[in-house]
Amino acid sequence: MTRTLIKELATKSGEIVTIQGWLHKKRLLGGLNFITVRDRSGIAQSLIEDKDEIEKLRGLQIGTVVSLTGTIVADERAPGGAELHEVKIEVHIPVLDESPIEIDKPLSHKSDNLDTLFEYRAIGLRNLREQTVFKVQAKVLESLRGFLIENEFTEINTPKLLAEATEGGAEVFKLDYFGKTATLAQSAQFYKQMMVGVFERVFETNPTYRAEPSATTRHMSEYITIDLEMGFIEFDDLLTFTSKLVNHIADKIWESYGDDLKKWNAHKPRLSENFPRIPMAQVHELYGKAHSVDMSQEGDLTPDEEKWICEYAKKNLGSEAVFITEWPSTDKTFKFYHRKNAENPAFADRSDLLFRGVEVATVPMRENRYTEVLQQMRDAGLDPEHEGFKYYLQAFKYGLPPHGGFGMGLERLTEKLIGLDNVKEATLFPRDINRLTP
Amino acid sequence: MTRTLIKELATKSGEIVTIQGWLHKKRLLGGLNFITVRDRSGIAQSLIEDKDEIEKLRGLQIGTVVSLTGTIVADERAPGGAELHEVKIEVHIPVLDESPIEIDKPLSHKSDNLDTLFEYRAIGLRNLREQTVFKVQAKVLESLRGFLIENEFTEINTPKLLAEATEGGAEVFKLDYFGKTATLAQSAQFYKQMMVGVFERVFETNPTYRAEPSATTRHMSEYITIDLEMGFIEFDDLLTFTSKLVNHIADKIWESYGDDLKKWNAHKPRLSENFPRIPMAQVHELYGKAHSVDMSQEGDLTPDEEKWICEYAKKNLGSEAVFITEWPSTDKTFKFYHRKNAENPAFADRSDLLFRGVEVATVPMRENRYTEVLQQMRDAGLDPEHEGFKYYLQAFKYGLPPHGGFGMGLERLTEKLIGLDNVKEATLFPRDINRLTP
Repeated sequence: MTRTLIKELATKSGEIVTIQGWLHKKRLLGGLNFITVRDRSGIAQSLIEDKDEIEKLRGLQIGTVVSLTGTIVADERAPGGAELHEVKIEVHIPVLDESPIEIDKPLSHKSDNLDTLFEYRAIGLRNLREQTVFKVQAKVLESLRGFLIENEFTEINTPKLLAEATEGGAEVFKLDYFGKTATLAQSAQFYKQMMVGVFERVFETNPTYRAEPSATTRHMSEYITIDLEMGFIEFDDLLTFTSKLVNHIADKIWESYGDDLKKWNAHKPRLSENFPRIPMAQVHELYGKAHSVDMSQEGDLTPDEEKWICEYAKKNLGSEAVFITEWPSTDKTFKFYHRKNAENPAFADRSDLLFRGVEVATVPMRENRYTEVLQQMRDAGLDPEHEGFKYYLQAFKYGLPPHGGFGMGLERLTEKLIGLDNVKEATLFPRDINRLTP
Repeated sequence: MTRTLIKELATKSGEIVTIQGWLHKKRLLGGLNFITVRDRSGIAQSLIEDKDEIEKLRGLQIGTVVSLTGTIVADERAPGGAELHEVKIEVHIPVLDESPIEIDKPLSHKSDNLDTLFEYRAIGLRNLREQTVFKVQAKVLESLRGFLIENEFTEINTPKLLAEATEGGAEVFKLDYFGKTATLAQSAQFYKQMMVGVFERVFETNPTYRAEPSATTRHMSEYITIDLEMGFIEFDDLLTFTSKLVNHIADKIWESYGDDLKKWNAHKPRLSENFPRIPMAQVHELYGKAHSVDMSQEGDLTPDEEKWICEYAKKNLGSEAVFITEWPSTDKTFKFYHRKNAENPAFADRSDLLFRGVEVATVPMRENRYTEVLQQMRDAGLDPEHEGFKYYLQAFKYGLPPHGGFGMGLERLTEKLIGLDNVKEATLFPRDINRLTP
């Protein structure tokens, strides 16, 4: 008999159908024998009264692959609004070992249980809550790409095996590449800027790597970066566009998975249409006043300030996302490819996007003038003649318009959108200093 | 003045507008002075009569970033169907160096010119023909994902940093990972099978790596693999689904870029709705007869046979794509995760998809039974107790339904869809034994 998906049951009350899936829960109590079966579309419950059928499941564990043929009986109390009655069971793949984790209950995501969580990741992901996290993540990518393509961005794929580390630094993985040394890309920065000269608006969603020696809940050595870059725009356009994009993604997530997310106590983020923009000095001032401390000599924001200003913006400005503007162009937060503000060169045309307490992206304009980029490289102690800059600088030499963009971690965005505690919970198989498996 | 995109000009005849873009071609001949300007949407031509305006472009080269404000005059002979007249030019970013390659003519893609092609890749990609290649590639991804999401696949991202090489072999990149040895993923094989147990249908489009020591036009060390895997299906479903998917992509490409592709002499591939399936022995026989040779003792197909059978299928079966079936389960083409045919275990439930003369994907069913996978590992001389198989085997132990799928190189598919000569032409910044830049 043709397979019926579980999500279709509620609309076919009275019909005899066959569903296929995994045994998700089993209660054989003599008096009340019921099972639930999971397929890609949902969970179905079935009462089993026939002793021969009950016997077929004797000794079989969660995960067993089965077909159930039975009559659909509408029942509001059942998951999905319908049950299967008078079922005939066919066991396709028997599972004999008891699952090491209970997949029909929310899994513990406490930091001290992360090892267990990942030790049985392939099984634990069968839990409905875990599934929701990664369905949300897939929808982030789908809605992101849809929005960007609608806005005439072209998707690109740039290499992750590089001759040189794009931005230098120690946290770079190195490997032997046919006798030469290659590094793994820490960002698509150089390539996406080069591609502005071709398509004006480009994006990519590919892995990037950081040899991050910290063992915290925040650090991973491999993650997917949402990279985008757009030409013929100015700073205000960039921040407005970024606000629209994040709003679009949040809307799509809640449209698609809002019901599930509510069950797990996730709240849709409150976001203004155009995120508030607060100069960094003002954050220091506001925070300083609220905590009776003097922050006026601070450079970058502290983690406490990031958290606090997000709460502040939520309460007072109606947005859980906020741009911090007016970054200095005179300290190490300024990269050679950032652009100085034309009117006040002591500031960079840069903002950091804070979302629910943490920075999720640096959103700057890039210096697009050839001679100015060369100068800023030299100011930063870099040698423009170096082989590693040759192809990057070609793009400037032959004309790049004003442009800006950002790189945003997909896992971090997922984590914050649905309010998880840890970026690793939003990663199927995370990689960090202690984890290279599963 | 607000920017008007070049593609909008033809609908706004008579209006005064401003376009922004790159100087794409310049002819200042005294009598007839015209330029073309390129933006992300197309090319616009402009006659320049005012001497002051001509003077602004004196000494400036292709790539110069400009604004042109002028009156739109419909003209069928002009690219895009309209010209700008009486223009005022504003130079934003002057380019002083002459472009090392002529970007307004088709670039040479001959193998002996590949070095030049990639030496100036960031500039060469501004050529309209090059742009079409990568717009097609972006559309392959867009249409692929659209089709898969429509068919209830969930997008996943699995790690490329692995503790062990998934399928062993010498062609694996190794790197130091915080004192351990990590390898770069050659495929997502294990992970996508594990994820069948979670979402039934999964796909990913991420880079994969092969330390390929050959310096040919075919070999690359980094490429994007379209990986998909689907559960609760049988072999026939898999081949039918794959046929539909490739047809869908080809249709979308020609719908979107057919006019451009025709200009570059690309032909839409002839594809039957369900690709023909030809047993390997029959290919040997047909080829043998046509060439008066005896191929009956051959195992795998030779490159010549692959080419020939595609021509044969195009002429006789109306399809430039064909599945080669009935692969032996008794030689080294059989992997431990392939499934033997239930009725004739000497054959694998496997096919290779040939498209325009080459293999673009192996499309097999996977052995999904725990004990059989263990046995096939042992038969292949592998140790199921090995740490590298632990998490993979968990998925089988706790229940996997029948499943199959494939991995297909994005660049190879792009190359074949539009009839390029070389997979590297379909790669923005290719990586091979000799190329780690740009």
